[in-house]
Amino acid sequence: MEEKPQVTWHQHNVSREEREALKTHQGCVVWFTGLSGSGKSTIANLVERQLLKRSVHTFLLDGDNVRHGLNAAPGMLEEHYGHDFARRFGLGFSAEDREENIRRIGSVAELFCQAGLVTLTAFVSPYRRDRDEVRLRLDKAGRQGDFVEVYVDTPLAVCENRDPKGLYKRARAGEIQHFTGIDDPYEPPLAPELTLDGAELTPLELSEQVLRFLENLGKI
Amino acid sequence: MEEKPQVTWHQHNVSREEREALKTHQGCVVWFTGLSGSGKSTIANLVERQLLKRSVHTFLLDGDNVRHGLNAAPGMLEEHYGHDFARRFGLGFSAEDREENIRRIGSVAELFCQAGLVTLTAFVSPYRRDRDEVRLRLDKAGRQGDFVEVYVDTPLAVCENRDPKGLYKRARAGEIQHFTGIDDPYEPPLAPELTLDGAELTPLELSEQVLRFLENLGKI
Repeated sequence: MEEKPQVTWHQHNVSREEREALKTHQGCVVWFTGLSGSGKSTIANLVERQLLKRSVHTFLLDGDNVRHGLNAAPGMLEEHYGHDFARRFGLGFSAEDREENIRRIGSVAELFCQAGLVTLTAFVSPYRRDRDEVRLRLDKAGRQGDFVEVYVDTPLAVCENRDPKGLYKRARAGEIQHFTGIDDPYEPPLAPELTLDGAELTPLELSEQVLRFLENLGKI
Repeated sequence: MEEKPQVTWHQHNVSREEREALKTHQGCVVWFTGLSGSGKSTIANLVERQLLKRSVHTFLLDGDNVRHGLNAAPGMLEEHYGHDFARRFGLGFSAEDREENIRRIGSVAELFCQAGLVTLTAFVSPYRRDRDEVRLRLDKAGRQGDFVEVYVDTPLAVCENRDPKGLYKRARAGEIQHFTGIDDPYEPPLAPELTLDGAELTPLELSEQVLRFLENLGKI
C-alpha cells in the first residue's frame, strides 16, 4: 500500500450529481411549517405517498422519528447516558432547545438532500430565525431552490377546534407550557415558497399544490 | 374537511419496505471503526464508489459532512447561536462530547437505514459502549443484520507511520490532546461483523471484502 500512496489514499467522494444520476429526480428539502393541528404531517404524508407512486425516493422527518432518537428529550437519554449528559444534550421546549431541535433537523435534512432524496420535514418550527438559518445553510451548501418552505396557513381557531391530539385543551388548562400559539409565539414565514390554505382546502388538494410546485421547480 | 376526519386525518406513513421496493437493495448501516489513519474513509469511499456502479443508493457519513453541520464544534456555532448555546451543544473531544457525537451519528444513520440506503459511516468511534448503543438501537428499530460493524484493524505503529493528516505528529508534540491511540484509548470491537487487516491488504482489496460480506448478507 505504501508503494503508491497517491492512488490508494486518494479520496474522490461520490458526488450529489452521481447519486442523482441513479434517479429521475433531484434532492431538496420541503420544509412544512405551521401551528400544531395545521395539517403539516397529514399533507407531508400525502405528498410522500404520491411521490412513492411516481418512484421518487423520499424521506419524511417528523416528530415520530426524530423525537425518539436524534432529538430525544432528557428523560429518554437519562437511563443510558446519565443525568448530566441528558440535561446537556436532551431537548425540551425552551427557546434554546427548540433552536437546537431545528438546527439538528436542518442539518440532517441537508444530508438527505445531498443524498439526492426529496426530503420532507413536518415540524411546527415556530421561529423565523431558526428556519432562515436552515435556508441559509442549504443555499450555501447546495443549489438554488433546494429549500422549499411551505407555510401551512391554518388559523389558530381552526387548529384549536381540530385539536387532533388534545394538546390545545391541555395547554389551555395549563398542563402544557410553552405551547406554540397559546403561550409561545408562532412567527409565520415572510416569503415562503408556497403558502397552503389549511382551513379551506382538503389535505389531498393541498398535497397536489405541493406536487405541482415541485414539478414546476424541476425537482420531480 | 371536518366532515370526514377519519379519512383526511388518517396517517399511513410510507414504510421502509415500500421505499426499498423502489430499489434492488436494502437499507443497512456499515459502521467502520478504527484508529485515525487506519484506512476507514478510504475503504468506505471505495465501497461507495463500487456500489454506485451497481446502482446501489448509498450515503457516507464522515467527518467532512458531519463536523461542519450536525456535530459542529463550539467555535463554529458561536457566531450564529451565541456563546451559551455553542458551549452546550457544540462538540469537542471530551468523553461526553464523543459520546454525543456518536449518538447523533448513530441516530442519523438509523434514519438513512430506514430510508433504504446502504449507509456508510467512517469515524474513529473509539468507545465500545457508544458503538454498542448504536447496534442496540438499530436492532430494536430495524431488522437483524442492519448494523454491520467493520473493524479496520491497522496497528497504531502503521497508522502513525502513515499519518496522512500529520495528526499523530501533532499529538506526540502535545499540540492535540485526547488523541485516540496516544492519550485516549481505542477499544476494539469484541465481535465485529467483519475485521479488515488494514496493514497487509490494499484499500481496494479490503473494500471488496466488504462488498462480498454485504452480498452474502443479502443487502445488495
